[in-house]
Amino acid sequence: MLHPFDSITDEEIITTSKLLKELHGDAQLFFSQIDRLEPPKDDAIKYLEIERYGGGKLPYIPRRSYAYYYVNNKMPLYKAIVNVSEKHILSSKVTPEGTVGPLQPDGMASVELAVLDHPVVKAEIAKLQLDKVHYNHPKLGKLNYKVVCEPWMYGTDSPNDNCPLIQNYMYLALDHPDSNHYSIPLRFSPVFEYLTHKFVRMDYLPSGADEKFIRETLPLRKVHPIVEYHPDLLEDYTPRANLKPLQVVQPEGPSFEVNGSKITWQGWEFRVATNVREGFALYDVHFKGRSLFYRIALNEMTVPYGDGRPPFHRKQAFDLGDCGFGNCANSLALGCHCLGVIKYMDTRRADTRGNPVLLPSTVCMHEQDYGILYLHKNYRTDSSVVTRRREFVVQTIATVANYEYIVNLVFDQAGAITVQVRATGILSTMPNDDNNVTDFGTIVGPGVTAAFHQHLLSFRFDTRLDGDKNTVVYDDYLPMEEQLPYNQYNVGFRQKRTFVERSGSVDQSPFTNRTYKVINENSINPVTLKPVGYKFEMPAKQMILASPSSYNVRRAKYATKQLWVTKYQDEQLYAAGEFTNQSQTDTGLSKWADGTDTVRNSDTVVWATLALTHPPVTEQFPVMPSDFLQFLVTPASFFDRNPALDIPLADNKFNKSVYYDDARSTAPSCCQSKI
Amino acid sequence: MLHPFDSITDEEIITTSKLLKELHGDAQLFFSQIDRLEPPKDDAIKYLEIERYGGGKLPYIPRRSYAYYYVNNKMPLYKAIVNVSEKHILSSKVTPEGTVGPLQPDGMASVELAVLDHPVVKAEIAKLQLDKVHYNHPKLGKLNYKVVCEPWMYGTDSPNDNCPLIQNYMYLALDHPDSNHYSIPLRFSPVFEYLTHKFVRMDYLPSGADEKFIRETLPLRKVHPIVEYHPDLLEDYTPRANLKPLQVVQPEGPSFEVNGSKITWQGWEFRVATNVREGFALYDVHFKGRSLFYRIALNEMTVPYGDGRPPFHRKQAFDLGDCGFGNCANSLALGCHCLGVIKYMDTRRADTRGNPVLLPSTVCMHEQDYGILYLHKNYRTDSSVVTRRREFVVQTIATVANYEYIVNLVFDQAGAITVQVRATGILSTMPNDDNNVTDFGTIVGPGVTAAFHQHLLSFRFDTRLDGDKNTVVYDDYLPMEEQLPYNQYNVGFRQKRTFVERSGSVDQSPFTNRTYKVINENSINPVTLKPVGYKFEMPAKQMILASPSSYNVRRAKYATKQLWVTKYQDEQLYAAGEFTNQSQTDTGLSKWADGTDTVRNSDTVVWATLALTHPPVTEQFPVMPSDFLQFLVTPASFFDRNPALDIPLADNKFNKSVYYDDARSTAPSCCQSKI
Repeated sequence: MLHPFDSITDEEIITTSKLLKELHGDAQLFFSQIDRLEPPKDDAIKYLEIERYGGGKLPYIPRRSYAYYYVNNKMPLYKAIVNVSEKHILSSKVTPEGTVGPLQPDGMASVELAVLDHPVVKAEIAKLQLDKVHYNHPKLGKLNYKVVCEPWMYGTDSPNDNCPLIQNYMYLALDHPDSNHYSIPLRFSPVFEYLTHKFVRMDYLPSGADEKFIRETLPLRKVHPIVEYHPDLLEDYTPRANLKPLQVVQPEGPSFEVNGSKITWQGWEFRVATNVREGFALYDVHFKGRSLFYRIALNEMTVPYGDGRPPFHRKQAFDLGDCGFGNCANSLALGCHCLGVIKYMDTRRADTRGNPVLLPSTVCMHEQDYGILYLHKNYRTDSSVVTRRREFVVQTIATVANYEYIVNLVFDQAGAITVQVRATGILSTMPNDDNNVTDFGTIVGPGVTAAFHQHLLSFRFDTRLDGDKNTVVYDDYLPMEEQLPYNQYNVGFRQKRTFVERSGSVDQSPFTNRTYKVINENSINPVTLKPVGYKFEMPAKQMILASPSSYNVRRAKYATKQLWVTKYQDEQLYAAGEFTNQSQTDTGLSKWADGTDTVRNSDTVVWATLALTHPPVTEQFPVMPSDFLQFLVTPASFFDRNPALDIPLADNKFNKSVYYDDARSTAPSCCQSKI
Repeated sequence: MLHPFDSITDEEIITTSKLLKELHGDAQLFFSQIDRLEPPKDDAIKYLEIERYGGGKLPYIPRRSYAYYYVNNKMPLYKAIVNVSEKHILSSKVTPEGTVGPLQPDGMASVELAVLDHPVVKAEIAKLQLDKVHYNHPKLGKLNYKVVCEPWMYGTDSPNDNCPLIQNYMYLALDHPDSNHYSIPLRFSPVFEYLTHKFVRMDYLPSGADEKFIRETLPLRKVHPIVEYHPDLLEDYTPRANLKPLQVVQPEGPSFEVNGSKITWQGWEFRVATNVREGFALYDVHFKGRSLFYRIALNEMTVPYGDGRPPFHRKQAFDLGDCGFGNCANSLALGCHCLGVIKYMDTRRADTRGNPVLLPSTVCMHEQDYGILYLHKNYRTDSSVVTRRREFVVQTIATVANYEYIVNLVFDQAGAITVQVRATGILSTMPNDDNNVTDFGTIVGPGVTAAFHQHLLSFRFDTRLDGDKNTVVYDDYLPMEEQLPYNQYNVGFRQKRTFVERSGSVDQSPFTNRTYKVINENSINPVTLKPVGYKFEMPAKQMILASPSSYNVRRAKYATKQLWVTKYQDEQLYAAGEFTNQSQTDTGLSKWADGTDTVRNSDTVVWATLALTHPPVTEQFPVMPSDFLQFLVTPASFFDRNPALDIPLADNKFNKSVYYDDARSTAPSCCQSKI
């Protein structure tokens, strides 16, 4: 028996595509995306209340799927909704004119093959005269060069052709599976139709600092050295000495329990479901028996580039809406992507033909130790309490072409959630044959520049603190008026609270320590005598830098503000709107958070934009040590006291750590000798 | 043979106090502080260069100590400098009039005893009629109440009496060593002389929201329930179920090596020395053979409170200058304060009589795993590189009365340093018998309020990137002018660099993504063709909120700005100046960073202020889950590429993680049954 929040099944995918194929008779369908449709929240809430507190039979909620598809490899894009429990189509409609669906991994892979096999591209490659260059690798011997094609979402710079397009960036690499092609960007970039694989146009890339560049491909006279990252290819690779194993050992097993999609750990309860767009979402999040959130997920990320030279100006990925973090999820491996005792979950996606594809182990869950949770020593008695901070991590990792994004939702034992994203992988690069120094990019290797860009991620928190009616406020901290009776010495400061009454956004204000909170005005903390709440501790950040007049901003209004508040509506899930690929305009928050809805003491949704302006540095090439973006969601007088007073005190009988000198004297002699 | 940076020894302390006692003949000396004096940097640099690169005999640098002391328990405060290598006094001088020395742990402990034993205080306690109240603890039976004295630095609100004073906050607790007295603040607060233990004045504390309050002590009619934190005292304590051991096991021993004060780990080399003021400092920090910093340390923290009602308006601790993080350091225990293979270091301090006191295990060093360092998957070949992020942590923990501060300097394998402070322990509390709701404090328990306050920490980085001449710059990221040839689509943005030419401070500017960097204009990165650098990634924060006219600010000008730049001078070590206790004015950065010195391409010191405005929440009482403050110091095109390409790829043969289902099936049945 599936739970309303459980991920889509193979059978549900098959049912969906089968019904739609039948609907369209002889036509060939190209599926852009199939996945589970969220249940109506009203129904789900009734289900959850009975599931948790009893009081009747669990209501029947039919499972539904949605499908985006093209018929006979042509626009328009269709959107269908299917009742997969009862195997019938609820609706199938043409989307608004010009709507382009998300890209599919197998769709992209076939474009890549088609590009490399196309006569125009082959002719362009022939001009390079690759047969006249080769590389003598000191370890691997003589290696040939090969051309690699990297298909990119096309982006938007005008009312687009009514057709899904692919901008293909071309690179040179050694003929070795792990050679870093991003080190040698080529200067031609063919545009192809996504569905038909028709050649559209050859773009040529600028290389110098100015806009003048050669619009033809010339023979390679000399190839810049490739900056490789794989140990097999590194010429000067000497493995770093003396990294000894550090193992996370849980001799009595994990502290968490998994039952289907339901996770319980240290007072936390929630469900985890994978999906192709967001990677995963959490549902029905409770801590210590109290409701916090109905749903939490990363819902969008846009990555606009600051290099305005055509065609780079169109580089603006919507990694969730255009591709899907679930579609791009890595299969996570034991002892590689996380340590300890690991539970994995899978993702199921549909391919372009509507067949289910298993993406194994796309989400991993594990515990980790992260230092001290709390500590106090009474210096009079030397008596201490010390507790370790155990964390529970739900992790997914998406590879979107060059970049990797590691998304961690981290839970502690005291009711706090850390939302942590690590950006890693390889910088998107531009040719710069003459190593021109610019103020919009960094030379990261010989002949190659990485342009400044931004990452703007939207996390959606469907709040449910102690019930369905919540309020968003922000608190500023201001000096007290001077010379007041309370403030004769002019040291006082106080909190000023502002209520968000209508849907919209909140401006950042770090110098008043502005703190966003979700409160429940109907639930008063018996200690503080004020409404209970949770706070969003977000560092002040630069938002999207492109001009408000640009397509980059028109397509991603959400990226202009750090915090948005809307009133819940079914199907308002994605900050930039449902369809982002080649979109002309944001159909998300800019429409929903327009001030029409009153949001105070209502069914409130918080959208938090996590932003990073990223001017690359050489240390981030050829592969980038994780850059951390994070914010905290922590109880703000929600509980009546520290909710982790009941955790055990730290104790070496439990933790079994050892002294440095003992460890060295007892380590195996083979290792000892290296010290 | 001691290194110039090695911590002070017992012998050096004894030599210092003995010579000074001899100097002052029959007088009784009260030592306020004795510690090692830093060597002159010029001498030390010569030493370090020869130590690292050879080229001669190591120069002789006599070891020196400093001592602050009072003679015959009276002002003035003396400051002496002693050549402890050659056992003679270099200087002994009276400090400027009104200068008060730092407080000593044993000095404070004896005040505490004297207060509780003083007839005036005893009389005040007698008025409480404690014999008429007791508490029936369900587990411990009938318990009496006791009064606890908490001596505080006096602070400043006017030209102070020429005398060190102590403000004693008084609390009620159960007669049990772990009872949380902070839960029941009493309303009388005796002021005593620090040196002579003379009673000065009885202050009475406000309780309500207004300034009117009872200036006498009345019998306790009823005692508010105490919010306890210790498991022995928690009445409703049910240990949280199902936390299974998670052990950090290093079967081949640690990856780091300790030789005296010298640490080597994964390309990092530095020395660690403990001291009583800062806790510890790092010296001569190198990564991969290249110099980064001459010295790094937390040098000051001020904690001003926002409650302006006398005498709370004087609550402004300088935890380093007034007390000393080393003086207040916890003895860290295996399996409690850090996990894995642990190396400990000790602190030596002098007591008020000039005798050495061993504070064991005040610094711990260990490795930890913190997720993924970098990762890339070539989606075409499914070939991945995944590396774990191993970190090396140098940690100390100070208990300053109620609060605990955990200071972690965290090193990664790619040249980055994370400066992380965790604030934990117990909130400083004010009586609030009638539970009045205010906008400058939070009711955190029955009858008890925790006032809003701030923590402003100064970290001093004596920079030495690739040599002695460094420059501080800040980079802003700004939209390109619209409609430029490069920016026809208005998406472009660029970097604008500003050089810090003269000593001073830099304003925060998060919305231009302002990034502070230290660069070496004499060392050009061969890839970027620009000077090498390191960046300080500091989140934008509210600085000190008190009025510029207040003593709080006059004493701590450093707390008004996030980043300060000075030209190196010996003995300019502490942001608010050498003497902070009862200080009238900042004698540190406000004097040194006054624009007189040119700092570009010079011997540059960076002072980073890490700030937290802290409005307490109930979850932080009775003991506070760690609140994290941190910033990153990372290479910014210092190396020619990712400097961690040489670390081993992640591998489960090395990491030995296990599947959830396997762990559950193999866990001992005693534990299995609990699942």
